[in-house]
Amino acid sequence: MASRIPEIRKAIDAARHPALLLVDTVSSLACIDYRHDEWGVDVSLSGSQKGLMLPPGLSFTALSEKAMAAMKAARLPRSYWDWQQMLRDNAGGFFPYTPATNLLYGLREAIAMLDEQGLDAVFARHARLAEATRAAAKAWGFELVATDPREYSASLTALLMPAGHDADALRKLILERFDMSLGTGLGKLKGKIFRIGHLGDFNDLMLAGTLAGIEMGLALARVPFRKGGVAAALERLAGS
Amino acid sequence: MASRIPEIRKAIDAARHPALLLVDTVSSLACIDYRHDEWGVDVSLSGSQKGLMLPPGLSFTALSEKAMAAMKAARLPRSYWDWQQMLRDNAGGFFPYTPATNLLYGLREAIAMLDEQGLDAVFARHARLAEATRAAAKAWGFELVATDPREYSASLTALLMPAGHDADALRKLILERFDMSLGTGLGKLKGKIFRIGHLGDFNDLMLAGTLAGIEMGLALARVPFRKGGVAAALERLAGS
Amino acid sequence: MASRIPEIRKAIDAARHPALLLVDTVSSLACIDYRHDEWGVDVSLSGSQKGLMLPPGLSFTALSEKAMAAMKAARLPRSYWDWQQMLRDNAGGFFPYTPATNLLYGLREAIAMLDEQGLDAVFARHARLAEATRAAAKAWGFELVATDPREYSASLTALLMPAGHDADALRKLILERFDMSLGTGLGKLKGKIFRIGHLGDFNDLMLAGTLAGIEMGLALARVPFRKGGVAAALERLAGS
Amino acid sequence: MASRIPEIRKAIDAARHPALLLVDTVSSLACIDYRHDEWGVDVSLSGSQKGLMLPPGLSFTALSEKAMAAMKAARLPRSYWDWQQMLRDNAGGFFPYTPATNLLYGLREAIAMLDEQGLDAVFARHARLAEATRAAAKAWGFELVATDPREYSASLTALLMPAGHDADALRKLILERFDMSLGTGLGKLKGKIFRIGHLGDFNDLMLAGTLAGIEMGLALARVPFRKGGVAAALERLAGS
Repeated sequence: MASRIPEIRKAIDAARHPALLLVDTVSSLACIDYRHDEWGVDVSLSGSQKGLMLPPGLSFTALSEKAMAAMKAARLPRSYWDWQQMLRDNAGGFFPYTPATNLLYGLREAIAMLDEQGLDAVFARHARLAEATRAAAKAWGFELVATDPREYSASLTALLMPAGHDADALRKLILERFDMSLGTGLGKLKGKIFRIGHLGDFNDLMLAGTLAGIEMGLALARVPFRKGGVAAALERLAGS
Repeated sequence: MASRIPEIRKAIDAARHPALLLVDTVSSLACIDYRHDEWGVDVSLSGSQKGLMLPPGLSFTALSEKAMAAMKAARLPRSYWDWQQMLRDNAGGFFPYTPATNLLYGLREAIAMLDEQGLDAVFARHARLAEATRAAAKAWGFELVATDPREYSASLTALLMPAGHDADALRKLILERFDMSLGTGLGKLKGKIFRIGHLGDFNDLMLAGTLAGIEMGLALARVPFRKGGVAAALERLAGS
Repeated sequence: MASRIPEIRKAIDAARHPALLLVDTVSSLACIDYRHDEWGVDVSLSGSQKGLMLPPGLSFTALSEKAMAAMKAARLPRSYWDWQQMLRDNAGGFFPYTPATNLLYGLREAIAMLDEQGLDAVFARHARLAEATRAAAKAWGFELVATDPREYSASLTALLMPAGHDADALRKLILERFDMSLGTGLGKLKGKIFRIGHLGDFNDLMLAGTLAGIEMGLALARVPFRKGGVAAALERLAGS
Repeated sequence: MASRIPEIRKAIDAARHPALLLVDTVSSLACIDYRHDEWGVDVSLSGSQKGLMLPPGLSFTALSEKAMAAMKAARLPRSYWDWQQMLRDNAGGFFPYTPATNLLYGLREAIAMLDEQGLDAVFARHARLAEATRAAAKAWGFELVATDPREYSASLTALLMPAGHDADALRKLILERFDMSLGTGLGKLKGKIFRIGHLGDFNDLMLAGTLAGIEMGLALARVPFRKGGVAAALERLAGS
């Protein structure tokens, strides 16, 4: 689910609550429009391995003035997590520790690829793939975890399994049979949902292959579903 | 279409014809069972870029005793094409010219991958993917170029376009819209057919993506066809 | 300089001091013999980018029973630095966070390479290269930072610049002219020393090139030195 | 040895000889100035694996009008060697056969690297490295195979072994001991000479390492020589 950050910001402000607003953008940065400054986020975190199309190994932090003031006032002893060292060294183009150099070269290329395509086109591509994924879910007769269309995510779609069927057993069957790894449910959703990633360097035919793996997996796992999810997604993709 | 080599051998022998039997295995080696010695082939040729899963750049030649005798008797002036230099140097582990070294390392790994999976399993995988492809073609209402089931190929399937529709226009649309390149018809088949490759490092979900691209392309190109090709292929893949 | 860990352990024990013994092995692991358990080290830290011949991006921690007890008793609030999560997940082959997957594949290969050569041979190679480096330093008339032969390092050799000459100016000239990066002096040694790395995937001819760059750099920077450092190193390398 | 192509052209013309002038530029293209058109060469051949800094696998042919006329008049039966197919397909950006695609991407990058440095700088770099190599040979007391300075090559330097000493035994020792491969003598020069390559992506410190390997190899093989070749080369490199 995509959080409605500007509204959360407004709610915090309306309540005059002093909390910092932290946003985890690992699965959404460079997939969905996101505005750290404009939306008044205090701390934005991200990683290299999703929308930035790199191997895992880099993380990113963006800070507001308010977050920096909080850092200065904080009394928790810290060293590695002390942003001041990083801010000071970054100013001169350096890092306080040996960075993952190879990934920085990769990042330069990833950003060039995103710029070449244009961020608006990247966001539109992900929105379109998400829409086709939801069309498949609907055709299968599966409910989405996100019930509010304003919270539909353009990078991940989570589906609820029919009651009495284990999502993780389905995931395991699909991994073994089709070499495809779906996301698991975390915490109280464990076993009850599975997540379909359609983010990063991803296109129509990769989504078709993904949904085909799920449709065949559902049949093989004898999970009750209506056929036609892939067909519904293709209809949507060819029509838009 | 897969040629029926043992029958061709028998026919040549029955006619007592002196011709050498040359077989081009570029698109079939390591995808379909093939036996140079057992089938009495005189010259087998192949390349690195299909079933061997490598970039293009290496080619392979296997010779029968009869082919070697023909080489010795031949009077066409030749140098690079003179197998004797290659045979002599290969005996000691060398090449008469600088070989494409990097591809030789790749070849070692490709052979290890094929051995790990087992050639029988590799052949069975390709046969199964080809069968699902033909199921899709049938569902779309398209005719195969191969009319004799004994000549169905496990690595490539060629489909006839409905009369009055240009296969190359369809191929162009699919390339531009879905970034997928289908094979063209050669010679008198140009524009009349397109070929679907399902060879090499290829699995069920890649085939599903491939067929989805064709099904969407047919709709976008307004080529008359019956929907359901992808669904028929999935049915076949999940059932076998 | 290579610290004499077993003696430090003994000294701590003799003083009955409760301190944990922490050892930074970033520049020495897989270059010099090191024994976490046998030497009674409490916490050993390392990184992927030196003796393990990988890009930077992985770090390693080994713990003693005593360190684990200290962890349980510690009252500093922590989350990422809480070893318990890592210990619990590692037991099942997992990580509490997304690891730098690609580097783990590289690590598997690096360990295979070290095993193929044999750790004893790897240590002997580094010791020999270090000895030749010291022979060069002596021939140039430069003093080593390490004055006690028991603390000579097999992975890095630090040299003192002649008084009145800036080590960092020399390093800059060598980088620009010969595309070679020497290590800098840290803290109060800044500008006074430079460090020669001879660790990881490194051999006789790479060392010869390295020392040649320094010898030419010294001449170009008009630093007083005696010629013959490279020649002395070659003598040593060819003789052993 | 670098052939003096313009003089050979003049000699052929002066003799009014009808022969085509063919030049093998495999070891010199992009290392030494070369002008196919200006020098009146009929056929220039090259490869990817030397000055172009790529793996082996691509070759190049440039033709004069006269060579093309000869092709049309030639009566030797040919197919693969028939330039007309290649000329026709190349005109539209295609190849008559599947080209080594990956190397074509590499070639694009290699050319970008050469352009970034500038061909004049590339030629000057090679000339300078060759000069230092000859200084080393002279210091060792070895004769060059090239006796005429106008034929000194900027990409390769061939040295004559002292009488009674086998160049190939030296090459074997250096390969085994220092993991460095020197070029062998061909034909009647076999065992009598060895060749030092200083071409392609090669710099001062690589040359220093190369010459160090030879100097140590000569000592280990008990070949009579005067020490100081490396030192002489460094003197030259630092002075220019």
